Amino acid sequence: MKLYDLTRSYEMFEEAKKYVPNGIYGPRTPAFLTFGSYPAFLKRGEGCRVWDVDGNEYIDYMCSFGTNLLGLKHPAVEAAARKQQDNADCFTLPSDLWVPLAKKIVETIDGADWCVFGKNGSDVTSYAITVARTHTAKSEILLARGSYHGSHFWCQPHGEGVPPEWKTHIQYFQYNNVEEFTNLVKQHTGKIAAVMLTPHAHDAMKDQELPTKEFVAAVNALAKQEGFLVIVDDIRCGFRLKLEGSALHYGWKADLQCFGKAMANGYPISVATGKNEMKESAQKIFFTGTHFFSGVPFAAALATMDEIRQSGAIEKIDTLGRSLMKGLEEAASAAGVKVTLSGPPAMPFMNFADDPTFEINRFFCGEAARRGIFFHPHHNWFVCAAMTESDIQKTLEVSAQCFKLTREKTGG
Amino acid sequence: MKLYDLTRSYEMFEEAKKYVPNGIYGPRTPAFLTFGSYPAFLKRGEGCRVWDVDGNEYIDYMCSFGTNLLGLKHPAVEAAARKQQDNADCFTLPSDLWVPLAKKIVETIDGADWCVFGKNGSDVTSYAITVARTHTAKSEILLARGSYHGSHFWCQPHGEGVPPEWKTHIQYFQYNNVEEFTNLVKQHTGKIAAVMLTPHAHDAMKDQELPTKEFVAAVNALAKQEGFLVIVDDIRCGFRLKLEGSALHYGWKADLQCFGKAMANGYPISVATGKNEMKESAQKIFFTGTHFFSGVPFAAALATMDEIRQSGAIEKIDTLGRSLMKGLEEAASAAGVKVTLSGPPAMPFMNFADDPTFEINRFFCGEAARRGIFFHPHHNWFVCAAMTESDIQKTLEVSAQCFKLTREKTGG
Repeated sequence: MKLYDLTRSYEMFEEAKKYVPNGIYGPRTPAFLTFGSYPAFLKRGEGCRVWDVDGNEYIDYMCSFGTNLLGLKHPAVEAAARKQQDNADCFTLPSDLWVPLAKKIVETIDGADWCVFGKNGSDVTSYAITVARTHTAKSEILLARGSYHGSHFWCQPHGEGVPPEWKTHIQYFQYNNVEEFTNLVKQHTGKIAAVMLTPHAHDAMKDQELPTKEFVAAVNALAKQEGFLVIVDDIRCGFRLKLEGSALHYGWKADLQCFGKAMANGYPISVATGKNEMKESAQKIFFTGTHFFSGVPFAAALATMDEIRQSGAIEKIDTLGRSLMKGLEEAASAAGVKVTLSGPPAMPFMNFADDPTFEINRFFCGEAARRGIFFHPHHNWFVCAAMTESDIQKTLEVSAQCFKLTREKTGG
Repeated sequence: MKLYDLTRSYEMFEEAKKYVPNGIYGPRTPAFLTFGSYPAFLKRGEGCRVWDVDGNEYIDYMCSFGTNLLGLKHPAVEAAARKQQDNADCFTLPSDLWVPLAKKIVETIDGADWCVFGKNGSDVTSYAITVARTHTAKSEILLARGSYHGSHFWCQPHGEGVPPEWKTHIQYFQYNNVEEFTNLVKQHTGKIAAVMLTPHAHDAMKDQELPTKEFVAAVNALAKQEGFLVIVDDIRCGFRLKLEGSALHYGWKADLQCFGKAMANGYPISVATGKNEMKESAQKIFFTGTHFFSGVPFAAALATMDEIRQSGAIEKIDTLGRSLMKGLEEAASAAGVKVTLSGPPAMPFMNFADDPTFEINRFFCGEAARRGIFFHPHHNWFVCAAMTESDIQKTLEVSAQCFKLTREKTGG
């Protein structure tokens, strides 16, 4: 097999550096992948496939970092978006889809009595902690160490240029550590507004971790007992594990929930939901943005939610994900390579044994990328409903080859 | 003339309250207009016109709060957006339009050596202060009292649910007040990272105020002398006053500039630009968002910038705005009503004399709305290039009628 030529991507990346600090920033930079083995820019996409600027084709297991659930350019979503675009997108006032989408969110999401719409995930995670603080008249927010909740100052993983005062009132615990969480609650008793949690732990550079029953029970019980709120940040998992929300899937008793990414299959919209008890507080919060009210993402979200339900997309990606995880384990084992597959099948992640700096993972993923399989060495993957068992088989064939190379490389 | 029937709008608004706190939030709520006289939801739009859910037609002087510069559904912008949509929108990596747009921004905007893209205006104002802090290793940010720079915690106009620590390091002065600004700089000497300013003062609930030459000179000189940066928040004015940026238009020596709104004619994208001296600091900043890299808004921005230049849109809206301002002044005077027209013609605002609570303005604007002219009683207006002199004439005819009603109402 001829390895992919990435000449144009890296020429463009060099050119990008002239105009943009680091060329590309955030997790979309090739520096967060296996530099030199992944493309830097994509030209087009369809379903689960993308083509880079050199014309190479990939089966994309990043699924646009989670927004692509039904497949790129899904016909029903595109048709709905285009219909609203014909009416117009960004208006002076909300479109006539405002009420239908709000109603559908409330009717679909378990424990959602009301909702507000934003654009970025960070818009709604920041909103949710503000509602919690207003509702409880308390200020402390509990977060799991290493969990990602957005790029706003209070939660961003790096603090360059952020004054320490702007990161106060955030208290950290270890995900799934009942004792540490319980002690943290005791330590801040009477001052806690909310705990914000991802449905399961899907931090970058780590195996994924499902929440233990004990941890879920402890958080639910302590929140009730102490009077603080449970906020589930379902931006990355939402609409992938259960249509009614990942909180229901794992048993979190969520007071506020945040969604984005997959909810409109790539169109920019996010949503925070809450319970009736918080609605009066929510009415006091300042929340707005120029494009929060644009109609096209509303049309896309309505179509996406209908399509997820009708097509059984969630069951489908679970089945495909299981094939992938099982197949990767078998292929690794056959090559004599030790791997850990973690997380739910709809969004798996793979790590290598004795690979603390992810060097082996970068090698394996880089080899896979140069053969048309877009995994990620540092971030959980996503499965989308446009994939087929035959895509999974193709993926496993390439993976088998790359495991062999990995075994050779690591001196097997 | 039969006044507009708004039955469906307000039925939908009541229904919205079931699912969304306050029904609609932010400045798009009918509660921020003349409640009962404005529609709550829009069905479709084209050029400078919008139609509400009851089928009423308006000439829209809010222009989607500034995003609509070329006209809704502008053919060249729509064609470019659709072409990219056919390639796909939200990708795992940036599209091949990343470099072309970055290059065009740097080549177009005066004093821009590099840029980064976000989604909301707030994304890039928050980014800009972070670059300034990293670059200067100082923490204080100077803002004009009442100026709007977004909805993030540090700058939002209301503070409900925001701990006081998260609003520290922000120091306020009065726009155009050289003495107060100078004293503030003295008071915080050695600690100031940046001043952030709108190109002119366009605060809600106030006459607009152009920057005085003395104020611009004082800010420029003090920044240089003290070593802090000048950040121009050009999100609302950008691409309306001068293609190269409103900083150049007014004489601000901007180190960092923020744009959004009109730059893609309604597609969601924002951009921060900076000078070479800050590029190394910018490389250290954490900045990302799920939809920051989507291709369609990049295509729309490229087409919008080309179209602004080729069509002379900025000159056109200046001319139309002058006709509007002059016509309104004359019509008011003819009806014996005293008004103040303020701001640049491309984005004017009108206030009534002796109207501290905006009651007269709400009456006038409400009467105009019910006759098909969408002004705003509390927020600056926008002119768009899809308007014609005949639209302005129609606007002035309705306005003449409404000034007469206002005169009667206020006991003339």
